[in-house]
Amino acid sequence: MKQSGIFITFEGMDGSGKTTQMHRLADRLRAAGRTVLVTAEPGGPPIARAIRRIILDAANTEMSSVAEVLLYFASRAQNVDQWIRPALERGEVVLSDRFTDSSVVYQGVGRGLGVATILDLDRIACRGLKPDLTILVDVDPEPSLARARARNAAEPHPETRLDDESMDFHRRVHAAYHALAAAEPGRIKIIDGRAPIEDIERSVWEVVAPHV
Amino acid sequence: MKQSGIFITFEGMDGSGKTTQMHRLADRLRAAGRTVLVTAEPGGPPIARAIRRIILDAANTEMSSVAEVLLYFASRAQNVDQWIRPALERGEVVLSDRFTDSSVVYQGVGRGLGVATILDLDRIACRGLKPDLTILVDVDPEPSLARARARNAAEPHPETRLDDESMDFHRRVHAAYHALAAAEPGRIKIIDGRAPIEDIERSVWEVVAPHV
Repeated sequence: MKQSGIFITFEGMDGSGKTTQMHRLADRLRAAGRTVLVTAEPGGPPIARAIRRIILDAANTEMSSVAEVLLYFASRAQNVDQWIRPALERGEVVLSDRFTDSSVVYQGVGRGLGVATILDLDRIACRGLKPDLTILVDVDPEPSLARARARNAAEPHPETRLDDESMDFHRRVHAAYHALAAAEPGRIKIIDGRAPIEDIERSVWEVVAPHV
Repeated sequence: MKQSGIFITFEGMDGSGKTTQMHRLADRLRAAGRTVLVTAEPGGPPIARAIRRIILDAANTEMSSVAEVLLYFASRAQNVDQWIRPALERGEVVLSDRFTDSSVVYQGVGRGLGVATILDLDRIACRGLKPDLTILVDVDPEPSLARARARNAAEPHPETRLDDESMDFHRRVHAAYHALAAAEPGRIKIIDGRAPIEDIERSVWEVVAPHV
């Protein structure tokens, strides 16, 4: 019997530990015999990664908010068409570190472009593809921002454009994530990101296991 | 008295001679004392040119149609926000080699993404900015394609992705340009691109002079 594909996204503030949790889930799924495609946004196939370099280049301080959100969706469309949709059609599990929810909270709410604009772009770029399940790794905005900044400062080519935003921006993003989860409780599951890593891993598995 | 800005776009098939005509018009306008900003799509400021390199890289054969159109509009949004709108607010004349009409005919009609999708993206990227006047340099699709191909073949790093399209694609684009001009005769002026260069230049000037 052919297994059906499932699309699971990880969301949360930078520094929330969502990436670590996504890779641990991938290991568990593979140990359980599933084929897993792991991807991260913005990014994925080479064209999407080329777009990522423009978005995250700290030198691009003059980038307009609208150009930025269009680049995020260009990268997403390429990832969906070239990697994600084909993998789901092959019956694989696809895990993505961020997806359209990130655009809703960071660009739609954080930068004030409006949620309606983001949903219009999602309709054009993703043509109905929605995550089956979304893990929101929830942490307070203050400590996660400090972790993300420290990590970037230690890198030779820091990707800091988004982390340079103000604390107020990050608080609005955090509130918007909670509003999304409240609106779609069936899809978006909040996991407490302040717990020990192994406890979070177990909580994620409890949420995912019934679906795979 | 402060002169008001005016936004004039040049449209037509590749190889139609529109770029030559745009630069000749720029010279005439400068000779008449106007300040002129000349730009070409996809392109403009550095971020928009970086996006252009991804769009036109002949190696990117796996680019999806949707990712491509989102990149065109990302480049356009950056050009509008950083160069075009500020120049118009300073009262300058802005000339652009291609604008949203190109997306309508090449991506909306040629690639079949639909005109409604292109107009949605235009609304998001340009927020109401429309050309005051559009010069459509009209040539038959066959000879213009041959000229564009010959020009690209002579370059060390050819930008050929679009020119590699089939003749049928170019015929549909040509018909779509005529449909646009019929729908907006007040804005879009058709100029016969088969005439001698100096005659075309004179025709363009006759169309533009009353507006500047």
